[in-house]
Amino acid sequence: IGCKKEQQQAGGRGWLVVDSEGQGTILDVDKHGIMHRFNIHARDFRVLDPHLSYPSAILVRDSAIILNLEHIKAIVTADEVLLRDPSDENVIPVVEELKRRLHNDDIGDDDNDESPFEFRALEVTLEAVCSFLGARTTELENAAYPALDELTLKVTSRNLDQVRKLKSAMTRLTTRVQKVRDEIEQLLDDDDDLADLCLSRKIATPPHSPSSRSIATNRRWNSPTSGSKTIKASKASVMGIHGEENGVEELEMLLEAYFSQIEGTLNKLTTLREYIDDTEDYINIQIDNRRNQLIQLELFLNSGMLAMSIYALVTAIFGMNIPYTWNHDYGYMFKWVIIVAGLSTLALFVTLMSYARFKGLVG
Amino acid sequence: IGCKKEQQQAGGRGWLVVDSEGQGTILDVDKHGIMHRFNIHARDFRVLDPHLSYPSAILVRDSAIILNLEHIKAIVTADEVLLRDPSDENVIPVVEELKRRLHNDDIGDDDNDESPFEFRALEVTLEAVCSFLGARTTELENAAYPALDELTLKVTSRNLDQVRKLKSAMTRLTTRVQKVRDEIEQLLDDDDDLADLCLSRKIATPPHSPSSRSIATNRRWNSPTSGSKTIKASKASVMGIHGEENGVEELEMLLEAYFSQIEGTLNKLTTLREYIDDTEDYINIQIDNRRNQLIQLELFLNSGMLAMSIYALVTAIFGMNIPYTWNHDYGYMFKWVIIVAGLSTLALFVTLMSYARFKGLVG
Amino acid sequence: IGCKKEQQQAGGRGWLVVDSEGQGTILDVDKHGIMHRFNIHARDFRVLDPHLSYPSAILVRDSAIILNLEHIKAIVTADEVLLRDPSDENVIPVVEELKRRLHNDDIGDDDNDESPFEFRALEVTLEAVCSFLGARTTELENAAYPALDELTLKVTSRNLDQVRKLKSAMTRLTTRVQKVRDEIEQLLDDDDDLADLCLSRKIATPPHSPSSRSIATNRRWNSPTSGSKTIKASKASVMGIHGEENGVEELEMLLEAYFSQIEGTLNKLTTLREYIDDTEDYINIQIDNRRNQLIQLELFLNSGMLAMSIYALVTAIFGMNIPYTWNHDYGYMFKWVIIVAGLSTLALFVTLMSYARFKGLVG
Amino acid sequence: IGCKKEQQQAGGRGWLVVDSEGQGTILDVDKHGIMHRFNIHARDFRVLDPHLSYPSAILVRDSAIILNLEHIKAIVTADEVLLRDPSDENVIPVVEELKRRLHNDDIGDDDNDESPFEFRALEVTLEAVCSFLGARTTELENAAYPALDELTLKVTSRNLDQVRKLKSAMTRLTTRVQKVRDEIEQLLDDDDDLADLCLSRKIATPPHSPSSRSIATNRRWNSPTSGSKTIKASKASVMGIHGEENGVEELEMLLEAYFSQIEGTLNKLTTLREYIDDTEDYINIQIDNRRNQLIQLELFLNSGMLAMSIYALVTAIFGMNIPYTWNHDYGYMFKWVIIVAGLSTLALFVTLMSYARFKGLVG
Amino acid sequence: IGCKKEQQQAGGRGWLVVDSEGQGTILDVDKHGIMHRFNIHARDFRVLDPHLSYPSAILVRDSAIILNLEHIKAIVTADEVLLRDPSDENVIPVVEELKRRLHNDDIGDDDNDESPFEFRALEVTLEAVCSFLGARTTELENAAYPALDELTLKVTSRNLDQVRKLKSAMTRLTTRVQKVRDEIEQLLDDDDDLADLCLSRKIATPPHSPSSRSIATNRRWNSPTSGSKTIKASKASVMGIHGEENGVEELEMLLEAYFSQIEGTLNKLTTLREYIDDTEDYINIQIDNRRNQLIQLELFLNSGMLAMSIYALVTAIFGMNIPYTWNHDYGYMFKWVIIVAGLSTLALFVTLMSYARFKGLVG
Repeated sequence: IGCKKEQQQAGGRGWLVVDSEGQGTILDVDKHGIMHRFNIHARDFRVLDPHLSYPSAILVRDSAIILNLEHIKAIVTADEVLLRDPSDENVIPVVEELKRRLHNDDIGDDDNDESPFEFRALEVTLEAVCSFLGARTTELENAAYPALDELTLKVTSRNLDQVRKLKSAMTRLTTRVQKVRDEIEQLLDDDDDLADLCLSRKIATPPHSPSSRSIATNRRWNSPTSGSKTIKASKASVMGIHGEENGVEELEMLLEAYFSQIEGTLNKLTTLREYIDDTEDYINIQIDNRRNQLIQLELFLNSGMLAMSIYALVTAIFGMNIPYTWNHDYGYMFKWVIIVAGLSTLALFVTLMSYARFKGLVG
Repeated sequence: IGCKKEQQQAGGRGWLVVDSEGQGTILDVDKHGIMHRFNIHARDFRVLDPHLSYPSAILVRDSAIILNLEHIKAIVTADEVLLRDPSDENVIPVVEELKRRLHNDDIGDDDNDESPFEFRALEVTLEAVCSFLGARTTELENAAYPALDELTLKVTSRNLDQVRKLKSAMTRLTTRVQKVRDEIEQLLDDDDDLADLCLSRKIATPPHSPSSRSIATNRRWNSPTSGSKTIKASKASVMGIHGEENGVEELEMLLEAYFSQIEGTLNKLTTLREYIDDTEDYINIQIDNRRNQLIQLELFLNSGMLAMSIYALVTAIFGMNIPYTWNHDYGYMFKWVIIVAGLSTLALFVTLMSYARFKGLVG
Repeated sequence: IGCKKEQQQAGGRGWLVVDSEGQGTILDVDKHGIMHRFNIHARDFRVLDPHLSYPSAILVRDSAIILNLEHIKAIVTADEVLLRDPSDENVIPVVEELKRRLHNDDIGDDDNDESPFEFRALEVTLEAVCSFLGARTTELENAAYPALDELTLKVTSRNLDQVRKLKSAMTRLTTRVQKVRDEIEQLLDDDDDLADLCLSRKIATPPHSPSSRSIATNRRWNSPTSGSKTIKASKASVMGIHGEENGVEELEMLLEAYFSQIEGTLNKLTTLREYIDDTEDYINIQIDNRRNQLIQLELFLNSGMLAMSIYALVTAIFGMNIPYTWNHDYGYMFKWVIIVAGLSTLALFVTLMSYARFKGLVG
Repeated sequence: IGCKKEQQQAGGRGWLVVDSEGQGTILDVDKHGIMHRFNIHARDFRVLDPHLSYPSAILVRDSAIILNLEHIKAIVTADEVLLRDPSDENVIPVVEELKRRLHNDDIGDDDNDESPFEFRALEVTLEAVCSFLGARTTELENAAYPALDELTLKVTSRNLDQVRKLKSAMTRLTTRVQKVRDEIEQLLDDDDDLADLCLSRKIATPPHSPSSRSIATNRRWNSPTSGSKTIKASKASVMGIHGEENGVEELEMLLEAYFSQIEGTLNKLTTLREYIDDTEDYINIQIDNRRNQLIQLELFLNSGMLAMSIYALVTAIFGMNIPYTWNHDYGYMFKWVIIVAGLSTLALFVTLMSYARFKGLVG
Repeated sequence: IGCKKEQQQAGGRGWLVVDSEGQGTILDVDKHGIMHRFNIHARDFRVLDPHLSYPSAILVRDSAIILNLEHIKAIVTADEVLLRDPSDENVIPVVEELKRRLHNDDIGDDDNDESPFEFRALEVTLEAVCSFLGARTTELENAAYPALDELTLKVTSRNLDQVRKLKSAMTRLTTRVQKVRDEIEQLLDDDDDLADLCLSRKIATPPHSPSSRSIATNRRWNSPTSGSKTIKASKASVMGIHGEENGVEELEMLLEAYFSQIEGTLNKLTTLREYIDDTEDYINIQIDNRRNQLIQLELFLNSGMLAMSIYALVTAIFGMNIPYTWNHDYGYMFKWVIIVAGLSTLALFVTLMSYARFKGLVG
């Protein structure tokens, strides 16, 4: 578990090694070979298993960083990057960028070529993941906002189902973005982990001071001889030798920048979620309000029908085949029956409508 | 309460002891015997009582770790594991795995056989609990997603009841997973507890330095003679003797790996919960929307009926047995009454429908 | 405000003093007497006032712990416990238990008789409060689950009102349990408060070192002469003299055990709350769905009525007292009118129903 | 910005100064005069501006505490309290209490007269604010609970509007209480701010040690000569001279007591909020359930009407003026038509009702 | 990355430089020129890109502060401020204020002219951002409260849509205010960042002590020779030389004042959000309640129609052209049929209404 790095030659299936020259080699070793070569525990290796669908994680181990960031599953050591599924459609550009950036080391024309190997590897993967998630978020936004506006105009089963699918997709994407953000934040909050991420320095130290091997492993338990001061001194001496360029400071700045980017992505998703929720509230109120209007119209129709049925009742009474005495003084009888019944009916209808209006039930 | 461990031979009902040889023995002692033998306080022992249904807990005591993780209720010391209800269906594989892993110690062919006894015991129980909860979550997912999709297609009382039962099950499972996750997180956050978990080291120290007995008990109150520096030195000396293999570092990595696994399980449950909530929102809007469509159709029917009733009224008027003067210039009268009444009725119906469409009430 | 404890004899109304012999004495002093005797500030004493209904609180003061835990309102010093309203129905068993446990000190047959006086008093009150809240929770659960299941089967005003009352009770109980839990957690999180809780040690120290009186009062402001190191040394010396039995460690374990218990109670209430919420969602969807079914049936009836009214219209037309020419070629006329009108009506009804089914409006 | 306090005589509009003799003087200086006299920055002075409606805030500055607690806007220094709008109805009792308590200093008969000037001023304002908010909360509770119970009995627009207004008031009050609570909590959590609140001690120090002026201003930046140890020593020396009576300990206890009180107020508001929410849920379900019952009754009526209309159709058929052959074998014909049609109609009605009951649509 | 500041003359597009004389110069350099001149990493520069729409951020770098606060995108160094898009309508007043305040330095008549250059620049931008967000919030409030009250009076599609748009605007504004608030809070919580913000001091130090260059970069990794004490001493010496005027203390007070202001803005938005939510709940209940009243009126109409249809049925029976025996004892027959049928119908109607009232369905 110590800081030693076994330099055994081994291989694996579906793994690509990119070394500090920017050269990529396909590994032809099985799982146990990789675990042995990179000194990874079986527990930690499981995190990279695509079948177990672990959430995104950045595990800092003694001589390696294990990255499971969305589609990028990698093991980063001080001079090699091991990448799973290099032929995956989304991983290919990451491989290209890794080769370019890790190779740049020798030429030294860029402005951040002085960074240690593992920082550059970490930056490439973080940039790839942040861009990937940002692109997914933008795609989702482009699909969701029109769908929501369409739903506002007209509620149909098809529109509803589409919005529901987009909402599910948004929830899943938010969980993934949140997880990556949390992993970066956790690193930023824990100075010990930040220090452990500087793999190069941990390796570079042994020749200078034999006791400094305990820096990495004795994170919380200080070294035997001198207590905390010695540790600080030896840490400081490392810095004095290697300069500030591979310090924790630079790593913190690097993580802060990508944290800000992923935070922006998360903000967009949160805004989208609130927009969806607001739209749903709006649709609910609109559907409810329209229903009231429908029922108001129905009330109008029903009032009309009640008035009609009273009129019809009057005519039906006179349609009975029972003879009655005042049947024969006709001439004015027919007109009066029609007019009186009609006026009464109208009065009833107007009364009903006025009552509803008085009660505030119709607009 | 000290670090001493009484090595009395005793027994208990429903308890199995697995020792460092991987041998399992049924204990035949009562509750007080166990509490005395393992130096457990009555307060802490209550946590293991299956009738009190305490939530999951990992209590770190001076000479023992008390584990109440779902179905696994165990007391782990530096050289023994005491397991409750070993004949329980879910506990049997844990017993098998415990015997295998704790026995492996002597052979030494595996890659983590150098871990102290209590770490291996802890790993076996954590692995069992995480797998158990993961399996329950997967079962729930397999039942819930089809049920939700079915509910989306057709809302019936049976489907609703099924989803409600699944939601209840999910809530209960989430609480349990959350509790296990919180316990692991709490251990990871508290360096003192992590240090206390290393039982072997605490036992191994006394012969070397008499004063170091205070490491475990004086967690926050430093030792009498020299203040904080001495403590650190003596802690460090422990480490210098036993090497890094039983350090806090290894324990932290172990817990981190299972924390990541249980976090993944919790993520799945959270996603499921949001999917259920979204589906309910969707169903609510769909039911509401369908109701509006039903009422629209009813409005159509009512408008038709109103038109009919007006037509019927006209015919009823002419059906009255009251004689009227313009009764006898027939021939064209009948046709005109039918046609005029029919057209007026149709006009009324069309007017009503146009009004509703103009108001945006019908599609 | 110092550590001195005035041993004046005084009395109060409605207060019971239990001393370290387990003897209970009714105090006959007024409020100011108690405040003076136990050196309590008026601000802090108000917390115990039953009329002001303060939430649960554990205030750690120099020479006393002020406990306001639900019905138990007490002041605990290093050798006395002052209990408010000792004749309250819920407080009587607490008094009995206090007398038993505080008396046990002399006999020394139990397993935790070596604890300091104030720890035993604290444990008795915590146990009483946790059991009390646990019992209330179980009562609530026993009432709520059947009421909810009944509500699921049939929604009546009576059932709704009962569930609403249970929900209110649950909310209030949750607030109380949460408050007790928060108080215990806050103590566990603050090492200074934990140290201040060890009243006996603070009192026992003065004879040994005159400067150590500042330990309790100068919690954050270190002593004049030597800075932080001296403090630590003097603290350590206290421990060296009194041993580990009254250390912070034991207190932390005590609080942890009851924290776990109250956490379990809170978990039950949270699960209950979620069950109620889920049931409400379910009932809402079910009510909505049943309404749609009702409206579907109504639609069926309305369609039937529309068909009927058309048929009736046809017959009414022929019922008019207006003569028409094709009145006399009877024999087949009557049958044809009935059959054609009946078939048209049936066709209309079938068309309406098919339309509704095609639109997905009826099942 | 230093600790010096300019003793210039100046005046202001609408400000009252209460000095350590309990004497109140109306200040007749403008804004800039006050800022200059009390050494307050323009940024901080803005907090007291009633037109800008800042939320409650307690700003700790070098030589003054700026209090903006609800209606009380004050500047507290080591020997003066400056109060805005002393003629405000709510502020008058605060002025009286301030004069009484600040004057008490000389007499020394009360139990907390040994507190420094600024502590007593702070306690008076905190007590006034907590009582004020507590009284507002009680008023709200007294109005809200009856209104909610009335709403439960009968949902009217007037009741609804009243509850809505109470809910708005509650939300605003909760925000204000929460803000005061947060300010107190923040002070309690930050030991530096607590130390800075002890204005008297900061002023009293200079004559003893010239370097200790840096205590207040160099909160996080230690003094030049000796690093952290010297600071602690000089802080301690201050305490050794002035005793414990003006220590941070006392201030913490003071704040804790009012924190507990305002926490109780917040608890009441939270309980009220949950009660309102539960009542709304209950009303929603009740309205929905009542609607279903209304529709069930309507369904009953519609079924009846359908049956009637079929009966009416039969009679209408026989009312047509079309002659039919079996018209003349009367005597039994009329009875049979009525009886058969009536029974068929009844059968139809019973069938419809049974179907609805079978489907669970009517109770 | 060191503290050196390259004083190369260069230019940029759309950038304005304000120097310590208050003079503004348009820069005519491209992106890389600016990055090189101000020693900014490409990662960090991206934060200022208006096309990437990053959320608000304050990044503290070695020799510059990168501000992305809403519309103000600036780089602040110890003697220059670089402002993006100086011709933007919202940025122009910021430029004016910057020139005024940064120029004031030489005259020295104001009360805070002794602040270091970067503090004044930071204060101007914070004031501009807080005022800008406060103004947007006030605008929103002025639009939202009348719209909500109008919606309460009458629910129309237009009102609903307006409220929905305001709610969306509020959500977006809240996210922005929250982000600015979080950035300020994060600075206040992190003493290291606060110290790094004092750019002037970091620059001023080198001539005095060569080793102090490590203060800024070695934030967490102490300097090689002497451990933490030396650092503190050197920090202290800086302060001893430059006095308290550019200390962390002043910066903290500055940030606290604007934090309080932006907190007030956020409070207003939160209150608005709750008001909107409460109004929506109220409208939902009101719509639901009105619907029940509509259905109650409909029930009344339907009951009337059922009664009418029974009456009509009776008359229709007597309208059949089937002869019946008791047809000829007329005179009283007609009256009795009308009266009996009318009374029965009325009785039925009254029974129905009483039943509904008994069931609590109509008011």
